[in-house]
This record gives sequence, C-alpha cells and structure tokens, in this order.
Amino acid sequence: MKIGELGEFGLISRIASGLADGNGVITGIGDDAAVTALSPGMQLLTSTDMLVEDVHFRRAWHDPYRLGRKSLAVSISDIAAMGGIPRWALLSLAVPPETPLEFLDAFTRGFLAMAAEHGVALIGGDTCSSRAGLTISVTIMGEQEPENIIRRSGAHPDDDIWVTGTLGDAALGLELLEKGKLPSPMTVEEQERLISRLLDPSPRSAAGRALAEAGLVSAMIDVSDGLLADFGHIAELSALGGTIHLDALPLSPDFRTVLPSHPSSHPDLALSGGEDYELAFTAPAANREKIVQLMKKCGIDARPVGIVTASPEVTVLLADGSTYAPQNKGYNHFT
Amino acid sequence: MKIGELGEFGLISRIASGLADGNGVITGIGDDAAVTALSPGMQLLTSTDMLVEDVHFRRAWHDPYRLGRKSLAVSISDIAAMGGIPRWALLSLAVPPETPLEFLDAFTRGFLAMAAEHGVALIGGDTCSSRAGLTISVTIMGEQEPENIIRRSGAHPDDDIWVTGTLGDAALGLELLEKGKLPSPMTVEEQERLISRLLDPSPRSAAGRALAEAGLVSAMIDVSDGLLADFGHIAELSALGGTIHLDALPLSPDFRTVLPSHPSSHPDLALSGGEDYELAFTAPAANREKIVQLMKKCGIDARPVGIVTASPEVTVLLADGSTYAPQNKGYNHFT
Repeated sequence: MKIGELGEFGLISRIASGLADGNGVITGIGDDAAVTALSPGMQLLTSTDMLVEDVHFRRAWHDPYRLGRKSLAVSISDIAAMGGIPRWALLSLAVPPETPLEFLDAFTRGFLAMAAEHGVALIGGDTCSSRAGLTISVTIMGEQEPENIIRRSGAHPDDDIWVTGTLGDAALGLELLEKGKLPSPMTVEEQERLISRLLDPSPRSAAGRALAEAGLVSAMIDVSDGLLADFGHIAELSALGGTIHLDALPLSPDFRTVLPSHPSSHPDLALSGGEDYELAFTAPAANREKIVQLMKKCGIDARPVGIVTASPEVTVLLADGSTYAPQNKGYNHFT
Repeated sequence: MKIGELGEFGLISRIASGLADGNGVITGIGDDAAVTALSPGMQLLTSTDMLVEDVHFRRAWHDPYRLGRKSLAVSISDIAAMGGIPRWALLSLAVPPETPLEFLDAFTRGFLAMAAEHGVALIGGDTCSSRAGLTISVTIMGEQEPENIIRRSGAHPDDDIWVTGTLGDAALGLELLEKGKLPSPMTVEEQERLISRLLDPSPRSAAGRALAEAGLVSAMIDVSDGLLADFGHIAELSALGGTIHLDALPLSPDFRTVLPSHPSSHPDLALSGGEDYELAFTAPAANREKIVQLMKKCGIDARPVGIVTASPEVTVLLADGSTYAPQNKGYNHFT
C-alpha cells in the first residue's frame, strides 16, 4: 500500500495510534491545537529542525527506522544543550505519494522509540504530499526552571571548554558511506559503529539536564556543525575566545583504528565534522572533578579540551604549542 | 543576490533582524532553543502547518509578501479555533538555492506583518537548502486559561451551528486563478477580492478568543477544508450529527455576483470549498443574541447555519426541506 492510497486522515490516525497518554498532555493529536501544561515554575524551551531528503539524509543510506529516531534526536539535543527536560514534539511530513507504507511505519516506530527513551510525547503535526522527496519538520518543546537554563552566552574567561563523548565519528561514518567501506585495518563492525553515530545519534539529554541542575556549567551548545563552529557560537555570544588543544580531543577506539590509513583527515574530522550531537560546554576549573563524577553517573565521558580566553579569537593548538589552521570551519547548508 | 550566496547564518540573521522584544520572550532566535514564559495560570496551545510549493501554493499566483502572511495566518487560525491567544511562532524554510533574496525579504516582511497584527513574536526556526521547491513549516504557540479552551468535542444536541464571515470565497478565488479571470458580470476588483480571500486570509483570532472567554460556545474549529468536512470533525468528536441549511450559508456580495454565471458550483463551493479560515462553532440557542453582539464588537459577522443533532449523520437541507447531496466532501492532500 502506498501513502497516496491511505490519504491524509488515514496517515494521521496511523501515526497517532502509536501514542501514549500522560506527560502533561491535556489534549494531544486530533484538535486544532494540542493543549499541554508546563510544570509549576518552569519556562518553556522550544526548537525546530527541518530534514530534507538528499540534503540532510539519503534514503539509500538511511533506513526509515533510524531516520525516524534521528529526526527527533537532533531536536532533543537542542533541549539538552539548554539544560532542559524534553517534553513534547510535533512532527510534520511532506511525503511523495508513491512512498511505501512500510517506510512510514518504520519511520514512525523509530520516532516513537526515540520519544519514549527521552520521555517525549508526540502531540501533533501535519502531513501533506510532496512533489519531490521527503521533508521532515520536527518541533520540540521542553521545560526547565529559569535559574537552570544554560545559554551560549554565559562563558567566562579561564573557564574550561568541555566536550562529552567522542568527536568526529559521525563525520568519519559519512566518509565511509561516501567512499564505500574501507579495506583493513577496519573490521565491518568498527565501520558500522561509526556509520551508526551518523545515522542514529544519541542526544545527551540526561547529561545536559544534570549539568544544568547541578549548577556546574556556564555555557552550553550541542555539537551539530563541528566543535570549532559550535564553540565559536559560545565564544561569539559570550564576547570571548578560546584555545582548543587538538591532542585533547576525545577520539573513539574505532576512530583511532582508522587513523593510520587516514592520517591527514583526523584533525578536521574531529574539529569540524558535524552531527556528533555531543555537548560542548564551559565551566569553572574548580568544578572539574564534580563534572567528571556527574557525567560518570550519566554513563558518558566528558573531558576538558581547552580554555576560554578574554581575547576573542578561537585558536587550535598542536601538541608542540604551534597553531593549527583548520581547513574547514563547519557545515553550511547552502554551500 | 541569491540565497545560496547569503548562506545559512546570513539568512537567519536577516530574518531575526526584523524582530521585536517582549511578549513573554526571554531568549529568542540565536540559542539552541528559545525560552519563553507562559502567563500565570495558562495552558500551552501548539499547532504546526506545512506549506509545500505546487501543493499548497504556486509562486506564479502567490506573491511572496502574501505567502509570508498566509504561512502564519493558517496557524494563527488554529489557535483562534481553540479560543486561544497566539503568542510565539517558529518558521522553518527549505529554500532552493537559486531563490532571489528579494523573494525571501518580501516573504519575511509579510510573515512579520501578520505576526505584528496578531501579537505573535517569531522566536526561532530553521533554514536549509531544498532540491526542489520551497517548503514552509510554521509552528505556533498560544495560551489560554484551562476553562476557556474550546475543543471540537464539546457540542451538545440542539446547539446552533454558527459560522463567521462568508464561505466559498477562497474556493471561488482558486477557480478564478485556475480558469483565468471571468468576463462580465464580475469586475476586476470583485475578482481580486475573491482571490485575496485565498491568498491572504484573515484568521479570526480576536473573535475566537472573545467567544471562548465569554463562555458562549461549546465547540469550535476553523474552516480550512470546507464547512461540511470541518463541522464533520466537530460532529465526530462530539459523537453527534447536524443539519446544515444550505440557504443559510453566508455568501459575500462578490460571491453572489458570480452566482448567475456559475449556478451549479455554488453549493459545493460554499459547503466544501477550503481555505476560508473562518470559524465554525456550536452554541446553545439561548446565547444567540449575545454572540451576534460580541461578533459585532470584533468587527465580523456570524450567523447560525444549522442545528446539532443527536443522530450522528450530517445532513444538508435545501430551502424546500429536501436533502442536498454534496459532490465533494472536502480537500484531501493525497488525492
């Protein structure tokens, strides 16, 4: 069965049938607008992302289940970067009528699985026909107490610059998809894990919230366009700069395995490769041990990779103290 | 200059530069998520709409200023239909890189003009490249006290069925665009007014809110897919039916002018023509006079067009009491 045969209202019912109640949802899908209630004392956090076929994803690479997961994951990551608690999502799809229903079902399963993992309820959306390619638009709403909301603008000179997890894996996964699987020394499993970082990212929702509620961090952003570009936003909005130590960047064992065969690509993949959806944040040096402990509780690693500076440049240093000139400053959707 | 030359961040700054402060906005565009504060005691209303080029609009017909206005108007209309107060909007655009910057500027002016007219602040969005055609995704958030929120499910047997404004104008405007301008008896001005109902609808924001806050209505919806289909949603969710009197449907003077040359199309255009963005609502007969007075204060007409019935069918009656069988039950985006 094709989506064109199911019709608009059939498509909406099919998605809505996967939903759970509760979670502050007073009226979900099925009225002119959804009705929800914020928890007492909370402010509302809102973000939206659009994913376009052959711009943000390719169906040849991205199975629909993981595409559904990622469509929500990138938005959850934005709420995490504010230190917020993700609550509700809206999903809009412009779908070519010839799309098989199995594709939509798997997409929806993936979206709702990601939602359930992070306590998010799907409360509305829109579906329509597309003339060319699938377009996905997701809006997420979260909440947090005003004093715990972390902005890009809060960094201070001499704060540490931190990142969670590992960097460059998603960019290397993209390179594997673009160039085809690499021969030895990588195993197929190692390659699949890197590709999975690109196709099925894990937003750092618990970590971002925990850091914010513990009052340990001064500024935060998620790493979607590469650390250099994304820390650049913190620097710009805080009217500061920073020094990043290239050899401090956290690299996964899989990434390290491929290094010998790709020595030249390493610095730029880890510095400027997009879509890792880790968190980059700044924090006073005095909080260093507490942050490591808190992140351990959240089940992820985090490490300092540099220092915020009063002078407004962002500089990358090599192990010998010399300056590294990155080739690529991050992803621009129009170039 | 083309959008591809401006780049993603240039495009975001260009849109953000048109924004005003205030309106419950704590942090607007420029962070991972927007931060807003609901007014005390209010619940959150949320709706989202996607507009796809050559599905919902054609650039040959729709100038960018009015397209910008309409992109937000259809979402404001959803908040109006809940009796809510529109507050904040998110705007996402997938834009072909060859789009002229003048198009985007005019679109944004139109969007922000509609926002200003209804007290809405643009607090975020997303921009990306599209391979084929412009796709617009708008999310709107509003608020209202829980006891004043009007749902589709609240109708009672013997309630009047009401509509605001006039019906069928937008559908007739679409017919004029599709078939080319009509010869006499219509003047160019009359035709332009009908076309404008399609291209630049006025959401009934003040009227919907006033009706809700006065406690006069039991169920409400906006007329986007035609009265028959949209009242059908009220009937279905209220587990009731209704009788609509065809000769009670409010028709504009422009619509009446064209009637003699289009006699056969009248009933279905006014019953099932989409995109009028009027409100359809139900109310106890005892409220009739108060509703007329309240709508007069809001500067629009409203009139009863039928009665809610306990039996679940929706029936359309002609002046002689016989049943009219509509040819078209409303617009389905996939057929």
